[in-house]
Amino acid sequence: MKNILTTIFLCAVSTLSAQTLHNSDVHDLPEMNQSSVREVIQIPDILGYKTLKCDFHMHTLFSDGSVWPTVRVDEAWAEGLDAISITDHIEYRPKKNILKGDLNESYKVAEQRAKEIDFLLVKGIEITRSKPIGHLNALFINDALPIDVKDPVKAIEAACEQGAFIMWNHPGWPDNKSTLYPVHEKLIKEKKIHGVETFNEFEYYPVSFDWCRDMGLAFMGCSDIHGLITTRYGKAKNARPITLVFSKDRSVEGIKEALFAKRSAALFNGELAGPADLLRALLNESLILRTINAANGSVEIINSSDIPFVFKTANGVVVIPADKAVRTKLPLTGTLSVENCHTGSDACLTLNLPLKEL
Amino acid sequence: MKNILTTIFLCAVSTLSAQTLHNSDVHDLPEMNQSSVREVIQIPDILGYKTLKCDFHMHTLFSDGSVWPTVRVDEAWAEGLDAISITDHIEYRPKKNILKGDLNESYKVAEQRAKEIDFLLVKGIEITRSKPIGHLNALFINDALPIDVKDPVKAIEAACEQGAFIMWNHPGWPDNKSTLYPVHEKLIKEKKIHGVETFNEFEYYPVSFDWCRDMGLAFMGCSDIHGLITTRYGKAKNARPITLVFSKDRSVEGIKEALFAKRSAALFNGELAGPADLLRALLNESLILRTINAANGSVEIINSSDIPFVFKTANGVVVIPADKAVRTKLPLTGTLSVENCHTGSDACLTLNLPLKEL
Amino acid sequence: MKNILTTIFLCAVSTLSAQTLHNSDVHDLPEMNQSSVREVIQIPDILGYKTLKCDFHMHTLFSDGSVWPTVRVDEAWAEGLDAISITDHIEYRPKKNILKGDLNESYKVAEQRAKEIDFLLVKGIEITRSKPIGHLNALFINDALPIDVKDPVKAIEAACEQGAFIMWNHPGWPDNKSTLYPVHEKLIKEKKIHGVETFNEFEYYPVSFDWCRDMGLAFMGCSDIHGLITTRYGKAKNARPITLVFSKDRSVEGIKEALFAKRSAALFNGELAGPADLLRALLNESLILRTINAANGSVEIINSSDIPFVFKTANGVVVIPADKAVRTKLPLTGTLSVENCHTGSDACLTLNLPLKEL
Amino acid sequence: MKNILTTIFLCAVSTLSAQTLHNSDVHDLPEMNQSSVREVIQIPDILGYKTLKCDFHMHTLFSDGSVWPTVRVDEAWAEGLDAISITDHIEYRPKKNILKGDLNESYKVAEQRAKEIDFLLVKGIEITRSKPIGHLNALFINDALPIDVKDPVKAIEAACEQGAFIMWNHPGWPDNKSTLYPVHEKLIKEKKIHGVETFNEFEYYPVSFDWCRDMGLAFMGCSDIHGLITTRYGKAKNARPITLVFSKDRSVEGIKEALFAKRSAALFNGELAGPADLLRALLNESLILRTINAANGSVEIINSSDIPFVFKTANGVVVIPADKAVRTKLPLTGTLSVENCHTGSDACLTLNLPLKEL
Repeated sequence: MKNILTTIFLCAVSTLSAQTLHNSDVHDLPEMNQSSVREVIQIPDILGYKTLKCDFHMHTLFSDGSVWPTVRVDEAWAEGLDAISITDHIEYRPKKNILKGDLNESYKVAEQRAKEIDFLLVKGIEITRSKPIGHLNALFINDALPIDVKDPVKAIEAACEQGAFIMWNHPGWPDNKSTLYPVHEKLIKEKKIHGVETFNEFEYYPVSFDWCRDMGLAFMGCSDIHGLITTRYGKAKNARPITLVFSKDRSVEGIKEALFAKRSAALFNGELAGPADLLRALLNESLILRTINAANGSVEIINSSDIPFVFKTANGVVVIPADKAVRTKLPLTGTLSVENCHTGSDACLTLNLPLKEL
Repeated sequence: MKNILTTIFLCAVSTLSAQTLHNSDVHDLPEMNQSSVREVIQIPDILGYKTLKCDFHMHTLFSDGSVWPTVRVDEAWAEGLDAISITDHIEYRPKKNILKGDLNESYKVAEQRAKEIDFLLVKGIEITRSKPIGHLNALFINDALPIDVKDPVKAIEAACEQGAFIMWNHPGWPDNKSTLYPVHEKLIKEKKIHGVETFNEFEYYPVSFDWCRDMGLAFMGCSDIHGLITTRYGKAKNARPITLVFSKDRSVEGIKEALFAKRSAALFNGELAGPADLLRALLNESLILRTINAANGSVEIINSSDIPFVFKTANGVVVIPADKAVRTKLPLTGTLSVENCHTGSDACLTLNLPLKEL
Repeated sequence: MKNILTTIFLCAVSTLSAQTLHNSDVHDLPEMNQSSVREVIQIPDILGYKTLKCDFHMHTLFSDGSVWPTVRVDEAWAEGLDAISITDHIEYRPKKNILKGDLNESYKVAEQRAKEIDFLLVKGIEITRSKPIGHLNALFINDALPIDVKDPVKAIEAACEQGAFIMWNHPGWPDNKSTLYPVHEKLIKEKKIHGVETFNEFEYYPVSFDWCRDMGLAFMGCSDIHGLITTRYGKAKNARPITLVFSKDRSVEGIKEALFAKRSAALFNGELAGPADLLRALLNESLILRTINAANGSVEIINSSDIPFVFKTANGVVVIPADKAVRTKLPLTGTLSVENCHTGSDACLTLNLPLKEL
Repeated sequence: MKNILTTIFLCAVSTLSAQTLHNSDVHDLPEMNQSSVREVIQIPDILGYKTLKCDFHMHTLFSDGSVWPTVRVDEAWAEGLDAISITDHIEYRPKKNILKGDLNESYKVAEQRAKEIDFLLVKGIEITRSKPIGHLNALFINDALPIDVKDPVKAIEAACEQGAFIMWNHPGWPDNKSTLYPVHEKLIKEKKIHGVETFNEFEYYPVSFDWCRDMGLAFMGCSDIHGLITTRYGKAKNARPITLVFSKDRSVEGIKEALFAKRSAALFNGELAGPADLLRALLNESLILRTINAANGSVEIINSSDIPFVFKTANGVVVIPADKAVRTKLPLTGTLSVENCHTGSDACLTLNLPLKEL
C-alpha cells in the first residue's frame, strides 16, 4: 500500500536497512520506526551564543520517578532538547530497598546512553527539605554522596565545594506562597544560590521573576517529571517547561559557564521569563519586520521560531503565532509591550514605536 | 494571555481545581496537565461484541524493558487502549541482581495502577527460547513461577494447566524466516498454542495469516515494547500494532473468552489481518455507502472509524482514509478487493459489486 | 519514493486511475489530488433525526462575494457540511454592471454542481436593509425576483408567500447592540420571522438566545462568508459557525420541516446554543459515562464527537475535548452545568449529580 | 471559556481591536479571525539570494477558473507564497459573454489587492494551443492584447517583444507524452522559450529535467489551479507545486532577473528538480551535520527546512523529514545520492562520503 499512501510533508521515517523485506516470511514496515528521528525546536541562537534547550529537574526510579535513567535521555532527545540533568532526591528514595544503586547511580546509567547519541547530560541531585529552605537542585556535581548530610545548608555548601550550580526549585510549592526566606537571602548573598526555577511542572511564580532580575539569579524552567512527559503534558511539540541556555558552545562546560553568567531564560506554554536583553535578542532573531505602508503603520511580522509573541499597543493586542506571519497595523508612536515576555512579576519587554527593525 | 489564544477544537485540558491561582505567588496553567486526558480510538463494535484495543506483548524493568510496570498502564491508557498484558521474559532478566522482585512482581505492581484508573490488565509472561520453538507468551496465568521450567514444552503445559492462552510470538524473528516447525504443529494440534503474533513491532509475517486461518488460531498484533512507545513509534494516534478483541464485555474474562474463541484481528499502520467475517463486519460498521448515481456507479463512502480502507476494482484503487469521506466511481459488476484487509498471505477481503449496502 | 514515505494515518489520497504512470514522460502523483476527499464532522444523530451540518448565509460574485457559486458548494462539501444556502444580497450587487445574471442566477449555477456531488442546496436570498429591520435571509424561496421590493416588510411577506423561512441575521451588527425592535416583534408574532442567526462570522449575540428560547425561534449559526473559508477561519476542522439541523432525512424538504419546527442549534468554536432538550440529546449521544469508583465519584467520560463539552461543578471545571476521554471526579450530589451549551444569555444546560448515565 | 482552553502552539489568532466585547449584546471571538495570519514556508535563502516561493500558472473567472482574481492573491498569501502570476487563457474564456473585462482585466483587479498586502504579482497570460506547440505562459508582459494573435509563434514573439519570459507548460499533457517538437527546439534556440513547467498540478515530466539541464532552461513548478487550492490539494502546508526563485531581492524585477538567469527550482510533494548547484546549496543551508562518532560514521543530520531530504547510500536509505533531525550511520567512503533532488530524468544530487560538512 505504500505507493498509494505517501505524504512526504508528514512522513515519519527512519533508517532503512539495505534490504527491506517484502516476502511471505516477513514484511517489514521500517518507516514506522521512529527511534532515530527527533523534533527540531526552532529557537534562534542569539548574541553569538548557541541557544540550548534544557530541562534540569527530573526523576527516575532511583528516587521517586518511574523510569530507568536512560529513558530520560531518549525522551528528551526525541523532543528536541539538548541537555538534561537527572536530579533524583537525596532523601526520598522509595525503591531503595528493592533497587540497588547509590546516589551516583542514575547519572552513571544515563551517561552511557547520552554518550551513544551525543546528548548532553549534567550530573545533578535534589536536596529535598521542608520550607523554609524547600527543595534545591545541585547541578554539575562530581559526587552526590558528600551532599547527603543532615543540615541542608551544609549540603548546599558541600555541593558548592564541588563547583555546583544551585537552583532553588518551585518556590511557590506546596503552600502556594512564594516566600523569600532569610535562609535564601543569606545563601543568595553568599553566592550559594545561583538560579531559581521560575517555571515548574504546570505553574510559574511571578514574584520569582523579580528575585532573578533584582538579585542576579538565573531564570530557569523545568518539568520536574516523574512519569512520562507525553502522558503528563500530551504530545504537542515542546510541551514541557524548559530552560533556554545561551552557551558559547554545545557542551556541559558551556552550559555551566552560561548558567553561572545568568545567561538563561525560562520557557513554557509560549511564556518567556528572563533578562530583558536576552528576551529582546530572542525576539529580534525570531521576527522579521516588513513595512507595508509606513504612513499608516501597516506591517507584516514574520515569526520563524517556535515561540509565539504577543504584542500589546494602543491599537489592541496582536499575537504572532509560532511559525506564522501576521499582517497588522501598529501605532506610529508610543510603546509596544510584549505580553508573553516577562522581565518581572509585573513587567514585560517593551519596544518603542515605530518599530524600525526586528 | 489565555483569552487571546483559545482554540477549542484542539484544546488540551484537564480537571481544574475550584481555585486556579493567578497571583504573584503562583500562576497556574492547569490546562497544560494532560494526565487525565486520553485518546479515543474510533473502531466500531461489531456483531454484538465490544471492540477492545489491546497490546499483549511488552516488557518492564523486571525483564529487559526500561520502565516501571505502572508506566505501561499509563502509557496504554493515554493512547486509548483498553487492555494490556505485561509479558516480561522468564529467562532474561538483566536487572535481577539489582532489582528485587520475582516473576509475579511486574503484574502485582501494575495491577494496583490499573485498578485505580479502570484499565484492564491481563497477567502474562514470556517463555523465551531459541528456534525452533522460539518465543511464546502465556496470557491469563495465575502464577508465573511454575512456568519457569527448563523444558519449554513443559513450561507451556504448566501455563495451560492454569488455563493460559498461549500466543506464538513473531515467528519470523530473528532469522527472517517464518517456519512452522513440528513442535508448533504438535502444540497447535494439542490445543496448546491458541494464537499467533502476526504483527510484531515493525513487521508482519504473511504466511502466519494462513496458519491462523487454516488452523483456527487467533490473529494478534503487539508492540513488544521495551522502551517508550512515543520514542519508538512517534506521536501519531494509534501508532503501535494492536490486537482488536471482540469481547462480550469490557473485562479480562471477556477478553479471555474472546481470544479462545479466536474472535480477534491484528491492526498496524492501517493494515488489518483476521478472519474474513470479522473484517467484513468491521468494514460494514466503519463505512456508510451513499449512492450518488446508480446508473454510473458514482458513490460516496463515509468512513467514521480510525481505520482506512483500500479498495481495488477494475477502475483502479481508491483509499478511504480514516475519518474522511470519498466520492468515487465503482464498477457496476465484478468484485472489489479490500487491499488492507488481509485474510491470508495472498488473500484479502472481497466484496461483490455493485455494493448494495455497507 | 512512495514505498519509503508512507504514513497511513495522515495519507493524502484520492481515486487512482487504473494506470498510474511512472515513466520518463510522465510521473503521476495522484495521491496528491484531494478533490474527491472530504472531512467527516463527527456529530451524532439525535432523537431519531439526522444531524445535518449547514451554513445558511454566504455570498458569491452575484452580490459582494468573490467566488463563483460552484465554489461555495465544493468548499462546503470538502469541509464535511451537508447543506448550504447561497444568500446573495438583493440590494447590493457591486459587480452587476460587469457580471450578467439576475437574482436567481447564483442558485441556478450552484445547483448543477450540488446535484453532481449529491450536496444539498437551499435556494435563498438576503434582504439587506438598515436597522431597525436590518438584514434577513429568506430560505427555501422559489423565485428571488418578487422579493426585490422597496418596503422590507413587503419583501419579507413576498418571501413568506413562497413558503420561505425567514432568518434574522446578526442582530448585533453593525452597532454592537442587539435590539429587538417593534418591527421584529410584530414580524415574529405574525410568524414572518422564524429563526435568528445567533452566531455570525466571529461573534454571537447572547440576548438572542433568550429571544429564540422565549419566542420559539430557530437557533442558527452561519459564516456570512464573502471570500474563502480557509483564509478567513484557517484550516482547522469545522472552523466556521454552522447550524445543526435535526432533520427527518437528508433532503432540502427535511431541512425545511426541521427549521420550521425549530429543531436546530448553532455551533461555533465549541460553543453550542439551542433548546435544552436538543443540547441534552447531543450531549447524551456524544458522551459515554463509565463509573470507575461510585463511592468517590471517579468517572471516565468518553467523547466520540467533534464537539467538546465543558462541565462545571462544585469541584471546579472539567473540559472533555472532542474525540478524547477524560478521567475526573464529579461530586455525588448537586448539579453540573455544561458551560459551552447555552440555552439562554445567562443559562446553560444543567445535569443532576450523580450522573447516572449519558 | 477562553481561560480554560488555551493552547498556544496551535492558537488561532488575529488582531484584536482595543475593545473585545463580551456582553449580552455581542460576544466577540476575534481569535477565530485568521484573515491576517499566514504560513511561513521555511526554505532557506541561498548563495546570497532570497528564496522566493512562487506559483506562475493559475486561472480566474476571466478565463476558465472559478474565483475572482483577488482570491488568488489572498489564497497564495495565506499559504506563505511570495509571488504569483495569474495566467488566464487568451483563447478560452467561457464566461466572456457574461463577465465584462478584457485580457488585461484579471491582472488589474488582482494588482490592487496585491499592493494592499505587499504581495508580488507578475502580469501573465496563457497562450493555449494544441500540440505540438501546446500551452505556454508569457510572464512579465505589459499588455496581453497584442499577444492575442492567430499564429502561436507570432503570439510568443509579440510577448517577447514586451520582454516577456516564456514558460512551456506541462509538456506531458494531455497525451502523457513529453515530446520536444521541432517548434520547441527552434524557439528555445532563438531564446523565445526560457523555462519549462517540469511540475504541473499532480504530475511531473522527468525528461523535461534533462531539457532544462541540457538546454539552459529554468525549472518551474506550478499548480495550474482553476478552483480552490485547499479543495484540490487538501490543507497540508505547502501542498501545491511551486517554483523556488533565487532572487536578488523581493521584487517583481528581481524575480524576472532570476528567471532569465535560470536561477530557479521546482518543488512538489518533497521532490525538488533543478540545477545541481542550486539544489546542493538548498541542501547545505537546510541541513546541519553533527558527527557523533567519526570512526563508525554515526552522525546526526538536523533539518531546519520544510523540505525533506532522502539519502541513499550503500547502507540503505535514510529520510530526513522536514523540521526533524535524524541519527544515522553513513558509510565512510563512496557516494550518497539525494533521491528527492532531481538534476535530470535519471540523475540526482550526489555527495561524497564522508560528509565533511553540510
